Amino acid sequence: MRARDLAVDYESVSVDSDALAAARLMAEHRLPGLLVLDERGEPRAILPASQMVKVLVPEYVIEDPTLAAVIDEKHADRLGRALAGHSVGECLPRDAPSPPVADPDDTALEVAALMARVRSPLVAVAEKTKDGTHLLGVITAVHLLHELLEASGN
Amino acid sequence: MRARDLAVDYESVSVDSDALAAARLMAEHRLPGLLVLDERGEPRAILPASQMVKVLVPEYVIEDPTLAAVIDEKHADRLGRALAGHSVGECLPRDAPSPPVADPDDTALEVAALMARVRSPLVAVAEKTKDGTHLLGVITAVHLLHELLEASGN
Repeated sequence: MRARDLAVDYESVSVDSDALAAARLMAEHRLPGLLVLDERGEPRAILPASQMVKVLVPEYVIEDPTLAAVIDEKHADRLGRALAGHSVGECLPRDAPSPPVADPDDTALEVAALMARVRSPLVAVAEKTKDGTHLLGVITAVHLLHELLEASGN
Repeated sequence: MRARDLAVDYESVSVDSDALAAARLMAEHRLPGLLVLDERGEPRAILPASQMVKVLVPEYVIEDPTLAAVIDEKHADRLGRALAGHSVGECLPRDAPSPPVADPDDTALEVAALMARVRSPLVAVAEKTKDGTHLLGVITAVHLLHELLEASGN
């Protein structure tokens, strides 16, 4: 079993995509995260739903937990403003690492070793050519776990 | 909207549960992670699928990527041995933090602030009584994102 056989489609957005639209996409399809591609279509980062929650909550509320308790729901309508007019790229943490990228010919064990080294919930599968990186799909940790258990007869 | 209204059931296992059974549970139900409870039933850790993949892959393969490429699939049946006879507790990283725990009366914004502070994909909701901690359920980041967007009219 090779990475190209394990790769599946996964919702992705661009660093230039609208942040509010990306948050809605996550929320509506109950996606725990999105793959973010850079301007050239190459994997740039994984954007977890928890990061979107972090962007929605005003900084002063994160820093002072007692404030969160006293802000009532009337103010909730202000939350969306944190995303409106912003790009996905602006929502990424500054230290967001690039997602691990496997070669289409990598074995399941190579993908697993890559995932284990960087503790990533997913690995992108991409073909590197002289024209750039062509994304084939994504392998999630739980999908890979399923395949490894099957292969080991468990 | 309070944490008690947002909490939903979530698959959990005990630190004493069989690791292979836990991995199968994850794989079969495509769960990106499990909530791990300690001996008293209190939230102890979040066990992501990527950690289970890490446990399955022999240490020497993680350390030497070139080895992963040359180990053929005949050896895959040995992978399950890393889990067989072990407990979930033994699969947790040593530095696994306890999951954040919200009070049932916390507001959605308090839960969001808690999630944002610790960058957790989920928050456990539990009632603390003199008899111990009683788990009501879990709020995932994507569920909370959905609620916050709804509340803000987005």
